[in-house]
Amino acid sequence: MSSRRVGGRSAIVRSSVFAAASELVMAKGPLAVTMPEIAQRAGVAATSLYRRWGDVSSLLLDMAVDRLTRKWPLPDEGSIKADLTCWARRIVAGVNTADEPTFLRTLLAAWSVPPERQMEALAPRIEQIEAMLERSRVRGEKAPPLEEVIDHLLAPLYMRALLGLNVDDVLAERLTTRLLAIDGAGA
Amino acid sequence: MSSRRVGGRSAIVRSSVFAAASELVMAKGPLAVTMPEIAQRAGVAATSLYRRWGDVSSLLLDMAVDRLTRKWPLPDEGSIKADLTCWARRIVAGVNTADEPTFLRTLLAAWSVPPERQMEALAPRIEQIEAMLERSRVRGEKAPPLEEVIDHLLAPLYMRALLGLNVDDVLAERLTTRLLAIDGAGA
Repeated sequence: MSSRRVGGRSAIVRSSVFAAASELVMAKGPLAVTMPEIAQRAGVAATSLYRRWGDVSSLLLDMAVDRLTRKWPLPDEGSIKADLTCWARRIVAGVNTADEPTFLRTLLAAWSVPPERQMEALAPRIEQIEAMLERSRVRGEKAPPLEEVIDHLLAPLYMRALLGLNVDDVLAERLTTRLLAIDGAGA
Repeated sequence: MSSRRVGGRSAIVRSSVFAAASELVMAKGPLAVTMPEIAQRAGVAATSLYRRWGDVSSLLLDMAVDRLTRKWPLPDEGSIKADLTCWARRIVAGVNTADEPTFLRTLLAAWSVPPERQMEALAPRIEQIEAMLERSRVRGEKAPPLEEVIDHLLAPLYMRALLGLNVDDVLAERLTTRLLAIDGAGA
């Protein structure tokens, strides 16, 4: 829903609402944040937030994805191997910071929205990933399909982070190498 | 915490509390269930639930893992390949039922408990998995380590389920084959 309204005043409001939501999530944890609090902190009417997002989960989901796409953009390093390795290392760095795991928990907590809202919220990130894979195909490389990137790179990194298991650059390297070895991608 | 109290009256109470929590989660979704409601439905005092679990997330987490370990036990098919294939197919069957995804969402929603509580709650399931891998090693097979099972089997299956992507027996078979191909496990 939000993507139809970017630009001008609407974009400024959206950005201040996300900033307020982000600060509140950091201060109180994702489960304790309410719509009226976000509205107050952002200096907007709660009714307009309800109109635009329906509920706080939907807003928090958009906020978390917006943060991901802007703060953690996808690399453009000139080869699919370099791109995937760099991206995996950024995820490793992210899950090992003090703040980012809070936004990962926010994504999970907000995942109670309906499936179509989940996909709509994730769409900007999926677009970034598809663009990275497409750049590789244009260069004539054999890039893995999106689903294999999810299965063999994102899923293990994030599942380990959730379970509190070790997530480091050695793992990032190993997962990337294995992903590219499947069906000879990266060649 | 619960594992120290199994047996006798305590086990009966625990089982009726989980049954009540499970019914409420199915009826209302995990985010809407409260401790007093569970207590009332199970016919116990809410104070005893607070004393034993602290908060509703902690209780729901134990309930979801208890359901997993009892309703979806791990296979014992005589070889690691047969065990992993059978287990992957059971996960596929589970995520494609009407009810089980609600319990997956419950696990995520309840994941806001402290990390040490998360690990304590998961321990019974980890024990089942370790026992399956150990049976394989005792037979002289080269079973994959637990972390590789998480990375290459559980993570992709559950991440796909969360994202609403296709989860079927073909995928189960492919993931199992690839997991066993790593370092020549399963030989």
